[in-house]
Amino acid sequence: MNIFTTDRVAALLPRLRTFVAQEIIPLEAAYLHGSFRALEPQLEALRGRVKEMGLWTPHLPVADGGLELTLTEFGMVSEELGRSPLGHYVFNCQAPDIGNMELLHQFATPKQKHTFLEPLMRGEIRSCFAMTEPEFAGSNPVNMATTAVREGDEYVVNGHKWFTSSADGSAFAVTMAVTNPAEAPHKRASMIIVPTNTPGFQLVRNIKIMGDEGDSYASHAEVRFENCRVPASNLLGKEGAGFALAQHRLGPGRIHHCMRFIGICERALDLMCRYAVARELSPGKPLASKQIIQTWIAESRAEIDAARYMVLHTADGIDKNGAQAMKESISTIKFFVANVLQHVLDRAIQTHGALGITDDTVLAYWYRHERAARIYDGPDEVHKTVLARTILKQYGYDVQSA
Amino acid sequence: MNIFTTDRVAALLPRLRTFVAQEIIPLEAAYLHGSFRALEPQLEALRGRVKEMGLWTPHLPVADGGLELTLTEFGMVSEELGRSPLGHYVFNCQAPDIGNMELLHQFATPKQKHTFLEPLMRGEIRSCFAMTEPEFAGSNPVNMATTAVREGDEYVVNGHKWFTSSADGSAFAVTMAVTNPAEAPHKRASMIIVPTNTPGFQLVRNIKIMGDEGDSYASHAEVRFENCRVPASNLLGKEGAGFALAQHRLGPGRIHHCMRFIGICERALDLMCRYAVARELSPGKPLASKQIIQTWIAESRAEIDAARYMVLHTADGIDKNGAQAMKESISTIKFFVANVLQHVLDRAIQTHGALGITDDTVLAYWYRHERAARIYDGPDEVHKTVLARTILKQYGYDVQSA
Amino acid sequence: MNIFTTDRVAALLPRLRTFVAQEIIPLEAAYLHGSFRALEPQLEALRGRVKEMGLWTPHLPVADGGLELTLTEFGMVSEELGRSPLGHYVFNCQAPDIGNMELLHQFATPKQKHTFLEPLMRGEIRSCFAMTEPEFAGSNPVNMATTAVREGDEYVVNGHKWFTSSADGSAFAVTMAVTNPAEAPHKRASMIIVPTNTPGFQLVRNIKIMGDEGDSYASHAEVRFENCRVPASNLLGKEGAGFALAQHRLGPGRIHHCMRFIGICERALDLMCRYAVARELSPGKPLASKQIIQTWIAESRAEIDAARYMVLHTADGIDKNGAQAMKESISTIKFFVANVLQHVLDRAIQTHGALGITDDTVLAYWYRHERAARIYDGPDEVHKTVLARTILKQYGYDVQSA
Amino acid sequence: MNIFTTDRVAALLPRLRTFVAQEIIPLEAAYLHGSFRALEPQLEALRGRVKEMGLWTPHLPVADGGLELTLTEFGMVSEELGRSPLGHYVFNCQAPDIGNMELLHQFATPKQKHTFLEPLMRGEIRSCFAMTEPEFAGSNPVNMATTAVREGDEYVVNGHKWFTSSADGSAFAVTMAVTNPAEAPHKRASMIIVPTNTPGFQLVRNIKIMGDEGDSYASHAEVRFENCRVPASNLLGKEGAGFALAQHRLGPGRIHHCMRFIGICERALDLMCRYAVARELSPGKPLASKQIIQTWIAESRAEIDAARYMVLHTADGIDKNGAQAMKESISTIKFFVANVLQHVLDRAIQTHGALGITDDTVLAYWYRHERAARIYDGPDEVHKTVLARTILKQYGYDVQSA
Repeated sequence: MNIFTTDRVAALLPRLRTFVAQEIIPLEAAYLHGSFRALEPQLEALRGRVKEMGLWTPHLPVADGGLELTLTEFGMVSEELGRSPLGHYVFNCQAPDIGNMELLHQFATPKQKHTFLEPLMRGEIRSCFAMTEPEFAGSNPVNMATTAVREGDEYVVNGHKWFTSSADGSAFAVTMAVTNPAEAPHKRASMIIVPTNTPGFQLVRNIKIMGDEGDSYASHAEVRFENCRVPASNLLGKEGAGFALAQHRLGPGRIHHCMRFIGICERALDLMCRYAVARELSPGKPLASKQIIQTWIAESRAEIDAARYMVLHTADGIDKNGAQAMKESISTIKFFVANVLQHVLDRAIQTHGALGITDDTVLAYWYRHERAARIYDGPDEVHKTVLARTILKQYGYDVQSA
Repeated sequence: MNIFTTDRVAALLPRLRTFVAQEIIPLEAAYLHGSFRALEPQLEALRGRVKEMGLWTPHLPVADGGLELTLTEFGMVSEELGRSPLGHYVFNCQAPDIGNMELLHQFATPKQKHTFLEPLMRGEIRSCFAMTEPEFAGSNPVNMATTAVREGDEYVVNGHKWFTSSADGSAFAVTMAVTNPAEAPHKRASMIIVPTNTPGFQLVRNIKIMGDEGDSYASHAEVRFENCRVPASNLLGKEGAGFALAQHRLGPGRIHHCMRFIGICERALDLMCRYAVARELSPGKPLASKQIIQTWIAESRAEIDAARYMVLHTADGIDKNGAQAMKESISTIKFFVANVLQHVLDRAIQTHGALGITDDTVLAYWYRHERAARIYDGPDEVHKTVLARTILKQYGYDVQSA
Repeated sequence: MNIFTTDRVAALLPRLRTFVAQEIIPLEAAYLHGSFRALEPQLEALRGRVKEMGLWTPHLPVADGGLELTLTEFGMVSEELGRSPLGHYVFNCQAPDIGNMELLHQFATPKQKHTFLEPLMRGEIRSCFAMTEPEFAGSNPVNMATTAVREGDEYVVNGHKWFTSSADGSAFAVTMAVTNPAEAPHKRASMIIVPTNTPGFQLVRNIKIMGDEGDSYASHAEVRFENCRVPASNLLGKEGAGFALAQHRLGPGRIHHCMRFIGICERALDLMCRYAVARELSPGKPLASKQIIQTWIAESRAEIDAARYMVLHTADGIDKNGAQAMKESISTIKFFVANVLQHVLDRAIQTHGALGITDDTVLAYWYRHERAARIYDGPDEVHKTVLARTILKQYGYDVQSA
Repeated sequence: MNIFTTDRVAALLPRLRTFVAQEIIPLEAAYLHGSFRALEPQLEALRGRVKEMGLWTPHLPVADGGLELTLTEFGMVSEELGRSPLGHYVFNCQAPDIGNMELLHQFATPKQKHTFLEPLMRGEIRSCFAMTEPEFAGSNPVNMATTAVREGDEYVVNGHKWFTSSADGSAFAVTMAVTNPAEAPHKRASMIIVPTNTPGFQLVRNIKIMGDEGDSYASHAEVRFENCRVPASNLLGKEGAGFALAQHRLGPGRIHHCMRFIGICERALDLMCRYAVARELSPGKPLASKQIIQTWIAESRAEIDAARYMVLHTADGIDKNGAQAMKESISTIKFFVANVLQHVLDRAIQTHGALGITDDTVLAYWYRHERAARIYDGPDEVHKTVLARTILKQYGYDVQSA
């Protein structure tokens, strides 16, 4: 409960907490020792129950079957769902689909909506977002070699992407490609919807990340586009608007992720406390009696609270004034929360000792997979420079990029 | 501007910012190279102007000449005034007087109010608070050797205190002393008002702290009470209520201090940015062009924002539900904000290079004097344990103090 | 080259560096994307080449086919081999076999040597060390439920162990079990050699650690002993000497590990520098031009050098005065080097961006698997307390364990 | 005792330890609450005793009255003397005089030696070193506006310096001034001996640093040279050799300072342990019983040991191969040891609680005055870049200064 907690969210959150605890968390062990694909039947069943409960796609407008939450409210939902790696998927508000839904919702033509958005909202298909290229530093997204050349009524897409999350099993890839190479750097690229059954679309591999190739939704692919021909009507928005559209994804996406991180932190802190109380160093003397453990608990509590306030204030600012007005904060929460996440997970693992590095708890999974939090969407270091540039401008100095 | 900014505070803050910048900060150099006492005539003149502007004692009710601000609103005021070490004094809302005013306001008898509170509110006298004793660890305040023995209509006070801030020149000392030694530890002490002209009250020395003895308001004394006889009517509240009353001082006091720290941080960040832009490494290449400096600026911005949100949420919670309900947060902000303060000051000094360690800027003053922030009111380590204890109780484990 | 570099080691190290670089590192990709077991034929071939080069089991006396290195010299060898996760195995000086060889060398009977040590030294078999139990905190090793009851000429072993590294495929397990429950805690346990084909010896599972079950040598097992009957002559040393023998393993083992960590650090720093120079942010502007990257490189260099000096001084002290005399340093290097390792790996990964979290470099492997460095052999926190206890004893205070 | 401890140093160190403890440390309180100047008679007496003991100017050759120690040996001496802020002065090996003695020893003419070096070695006069200018960033020392123009047999010096340590009371200032403005940047400046009684030499002020103006030896001056005329024979070395000579001062000077820092750390750790054992939280329960305090003690021990090894290895390398060969290490120890110093002091102060921020111990003095350790001789950040540049050169990349 905090100042941003609306009545409807106050009613919603405990339901989510209970559902995650009772229905989703019990599936984690199977996920950690098996695969996402093997778990899909059970997840499908849970998705059905979520629909029955009227909690499906909570981020969407009521007209589209959602709960029409504000970004701030959805942020709180995202925290609750983030307490398990499987939470968002069960509610069909998982990245990258949620970002694609938002994009299509705002910018798709009616036909695009019918073909791509509607089955996505219903959870019948999945999608991916193909932007990052292995040959170029992610910190400078305008560097891009993938091209989409207009030939008659088609675009011919050629390129090489990686970290195309969840491509394995996706129905389509929202793909960034240069369509207007003669324009200024930020106006060269467009977003084009490429169905994954298009000839020439090739899933090279699920990249093995931190020991884990993953599969299905839980994967990050390297993909190639070799003369992929798609109808020109698959263009999303206007030619050259690719980066402008990508920016739209960014603000809300950052909130979703950061609140998910906070959910992870809360779960990690909960596990840490439970274990500290249960594990005995000697009869009657639990780990929780050690001052270092107490210190870690207190520091984690403080950092998590600080992180949540920052994110919710940012979300609230976006709700009220739009993402552009909160640009500085959106950069700030990126690196601030990612670091809190890493610290809290590290302390939770250290508290668990040998158990902490096994996959017998979910901590090691997050330790591995969320190491990426300090890297994706631009590494922390880039965001710090971006923030400093904005600040120093007020002092009359213009930091040169590079 | 943030969610807690009320209209009246939104109108007030820019006035304070301007007054501090134009009237108070210009006096800093004289303070840093001279003494508080030497500056008093000029400060007195500024106090007169503050009264004329109707901004005197902003924390007090309108009936007492104040602005009747909520704690949250006053927190924001405290931030603005905190941008200079002289800010709070000029507005007569400086510790320890502000805490004593609040105590007397709530618990003093009409006669006590007339004698002690009213001239204090008018700024005619100053006061101090005598609690800490050199012989006992501050982390356990119930350890105390000072006694006040009732003899007829008087209390006879004997004891040894230090860190009695601003005792030099004070009219009276609110003094913690054991009156009921047979009671449970938390019910042994009382608060007694001891006028400093009472025979036996001895200001042993202004303790030299970080190279600086200070004087007048800007000092921290060691004092002795040797058979100090004060009227029994100088008892504040009830016998044995000393710790209960001290608790009352604590919640709001923590907000005042923490918001003051944030004001210091904002000023330090401002100085850092100004210097980074002005200082040239080579012609046309300012310090601000270095990525490390940019990183420090961004990290400072993030940490300060996080700290402010935490404190304002805590203040808002106290305003709405009382300090007891926010106990956990009050412990949390103590150590969280004190550490942000130290990091930001350290970066600001490092940015200034050799200039940073001189007293030609205010940074070194704060670096020295606010090192205490991690110590007073109980060291960080104690507050972390207190917070962990509360959390672990929810898991069924009761941390043993000690 | 440093003060500890003897002539023979100065001649040896470049040979090792070259062999690791040319023969072992090229196998890493197959290991990271496949399994240890699949790689064994190739590793076997390399082992043959190492024997031909006369570099086999460098830690052993010449009489046993080794190089008769001092601990300090072997430390430097361990650093070189540590540059790849496969290095030590190829030279047959990998933990836990190296520790078992040392134990058997010092304490085994002639018959035990013939049966267990000799094939181990020749690399024909592998072994494991069964000590840690899941039910007891590793920080207090005397807590142990595994028992070995003498019945006639046999011991009957019952118990439950985990983190029995490399049990998968081992010929025998040196097993800690309580034989003398009535003795003082440190004199209750014995070491008993349990061949893994003993009926009742059960490898429950290779524990999935950080996403990786591993197999063969590269695994950490959970094992059960159910009425395992072994000849009484399999007792290593005397009854009740288990902890005393375990102590023997500890000092040298700490040096082996810490120098291996330093090898990992050097490799990570090398990868970081290569990538920083190769990766372009924009044409002609490599990542290495960023001050943050430069700072990470410098800090890593400093920390690695500091760590190496500490470990080599400790090794040299053990060579000259024995492990007991260096007890304090042996605790110190444990936590100091493990933390350097984690910092350097973290910076190397962050430098690599998205690539850093994939298994396309070896960094993510170490990031995951060496997280254990701060935990095994007792977590850092325990070693800090142990060190502080020794120091505080000199001031007349005896820290109570617990 | 470590590998670098020679027999003569092993005999010497305990004598120094005892002398510092018994004769010098007892004077600290007077220094901290008074002034250096007021203490000079007592210090003079101690200097006499040091001469009698045959320990005077230990860094000098025997022929000059010293002990002819290696740099490594003198490093260990410097550590012992560093345990008190007054130690080096009493043995006449204090900066900046020790650096000036070394310079004059190597580069002075016989006449210069007679006039300036000999009374300096005898302790009859003091000296200073005027290099840093307030108008230029210290991180780029070739930026310099002070000029020395040759007119006939004289140089006419004009300029503005600050952080001219110990100028107050000095007999002469070794002064860096541009004599050859047309040369390449590193060949423009010369070192010229300017007696402080030269007309036009003006001590503007002792800069107030961290609350402390200091006086006499214990001060840092701002000075002006206004048409100071000195004989051309006061040139030290050759025209344009200023920076080359300054480099000579640097390597050994860094060792002196770093070992002095380590002496401070050892004293701080000693004070921390003593206080932790003596201060009771409750009867029979000292501060030392807290795990956090134990952790700080252990971490301090580890960091100090690491720092000492690094510095001694660097010193040993300089002794054997010269400073140029150890350039990288000389940069490394600068930032590594300065940070250890700050951490250890911070922990020692926090352990002492309120007492720690008073001048009732020496800790607050060091906390204030040694904050400069991360700044002088170029801030840490510059040294990290310098080190990274050397490393990256080996990878084919040349970091552009700027």
